[in-house]
Amino acid sequence: MNFADRLVSAIRSKGNPCVVGLDPRIGVMPRFVTEEYKDQPIDTAIRRIITGFHALIIESVSGLVPAVKLQIAFYEQYGVPGLQALMDTIGIAKQNGLIVIIDAKRNDIASTAEAYASAFLGSTEVFGKRITAFDADCITVSPFLGRDSLMPFVRNCIDYEKGMFVLVKTSNVGSADLQDQRVGGDGEPIYRLLAGMVDELSIECVGDCGYSSIGAVVGATFPQEARELRRLMPHSFILVPGYGAQGGTAEDAAACFNRDGSGAVVNASRSITHMEDEPPRSRIEFMAAVRQRVLRMAADLQRVVGHRE
Amino acid sequence: MNFADRLVSAIRSKGNPCVVGLDPRIGVMPRFVTEEYKDQPIDTAIRRIITGFHALIIESVSGLVPAVKLQIAFYEQYGVPGLQALMDTIGIAKQNGLIVIIDAKRNDIASTAEAYASAFLGSTEVFGKRITAFDADCITVSPFLGRDSLMPFVRNCIDYEKGMFVLVKTSNVGSADLQDQRVGGDGEPIYRLLAGMVDELSIECVGDCGYSSIGAVVGATFPQEARELRRLMPHSFILVPGYGAQGGTAEDAAACFNRDGSGAVVNASRSITHMEDEPPRSRIEFMAAVRQRVLRMAADLQRVVGHRE
Repeated sequence: MNFADRLVSAIRSKGNPCVVGLDPRIGVMPRFVTEEYKDQPIDTAIRRIITGFHALIIESVSGLVPAVKLQIAFYEQYGVPGLQALMDTIGIAKQNGLIVIIDAKRNDIASTAEAYASAFLGSTEVFGKRITAFDADCITVSPFLGRDSLMPFVRNCIDYEKGMFVLVKTSNVGSADLQDQRVGGDGEPIYRLLAGMVDELSIECVGDCGYSSIGAVVGATFPQEARELRRLMPHSFILVPGYGAQGGTAEDAAACFNRDGSGAVVNASRSITHMEDEPPRSRIEFMAAVRQRVLRMAADLQRVVGHRE
Repeated sequence: MNFADRLVSAIRSKGNPCVVGLDPRIGVMPRFVTEEYKDQPIDTAIRRIITGFHALIIESVSGLVPAVKLQIAFYEQYGVPGLQALMDTIGIAKQNGLIVIIDAKRNDIASTAEAYASAFLGSTEVFGKRITAFDADCITVSPFLGRDSLMPFVRNCIDYEKGMFVLVKTSNVGSADLQDQRVGGDGEPIYRLLAGMVDELSIECVGDCGYSSIGAVVGATFPQEARELRRLMPHSFILVPGYGAQGGTAEDAAACFNRDGSGAVVNASRSITHMEDEPPRSRIEFMAAVRQRVLRMAADLQRVVGHRE
């Protein structure tokens, strides 16, 4: 099934557009997750701790949210065992019926972009057989190298029924340095130019739901730009980072949704899974807290999404 | 020692600025490399084939070139065994005294950019100890998310004496889509703006050689822009892709060098290591061909580099 159709169906069945970010930082995980592996070889400990922590979160939220987003940088910082934990986490998330988004912001040119697309969405030939590497449902990509650099990802979205979110306006202050620069005679900001590119690509991959598998990343921290970008990419889903720990509110995130309350998913990572300030004492306590935080976020969004003038 | 000083010293001792790209594609490797692993479990085969192939190349070129560049996309397409082969390759390259550049074009914001910088240049804390993940000498990064997104990489370059090359003008046709856009009242192209950002950052990390560990990527396919960018970033080394298979000539690449013949390294990948059109019949034949191609490239560059008006 087309990725956008799968995403819409998952959002409907869970009743909310919240995505839980799985960004492993062993140093801030609860002691009951880390302690039992402390005396094991470091590679084994890293893999088991991250996978175990994510298994608890996924078990807590699989009935509540449509998708999880894995920020690959936090796995890469632990090297190969971190990436083994990424593979394990993807497997557990899929077994639990969750859509897997890898936040990788990858991009390169020509055959290198093809290799990235094969790594995350498609497959690679070895000895006449096709093997999958990470096999996510969806990946985030950077448009810095231009339209031709995005095409291998688009082709993989079509061939493998996968999805992609192109960075259009990121949630950090420094996003202004490049993305807000005004170009050409009429002083159009770069993010608007990128929205045009995404909209053009999105037509290649529209599902029965009316949305495309080619979406965009727009930070919750810039609601004014978000309202404009929502209009400029009518077929695109928007992946919204910046809610919660980064300061974006539900009202801000709501700018990325259409009036009927569809068309976006909102990610929260630290504000759902990090509890270093009030450490849970047991698995049960941790899982209850994760569920409570997700439900609070869902209610927070429900209050404003789809009620926009 | 400061990364730029190490790079300058390696270029001097090898007598040329050629970098060999190690971009594994099992399908085009010589049969004598792949055949012996054909009946092994696929994960073992992938790791051993890639590592074995690269060991041959490194043995062939370690006396001839200052550095190797590993394009991580081609390892990621083979999943975890591909990344194990990346680690193996880094180890062999270092043992052979080569500088290791990972071409990853990574970037993200805030703590995520820090995680990438820790993964590739620095270290990560686990149970009170600092472990390294990929521990390259140098990484390529994308400036799409702005100046703040580059700072964690800069800090790691300083703290760990590593290097980074920021994408300024890439070698593909589509680089025009974003990088050539003209901004502001005076119609300055984005790549010039980025050169200003790189130049400003480069001052943080200048070695005794006069060059900084903060460099730039400028494609050999755009010599006119390269000449301008060379002037705008006087402290920065330029990493030049696009020579050889992508169509850039030695004359084109020469535009990235200063008049004294310093200030750039030129990468070639496929044109050195891929021989599917005239397959070598033995290890000896393959290694001789690799050496011959590197020497031809070095002579080709020597003909024009440093002789510019």
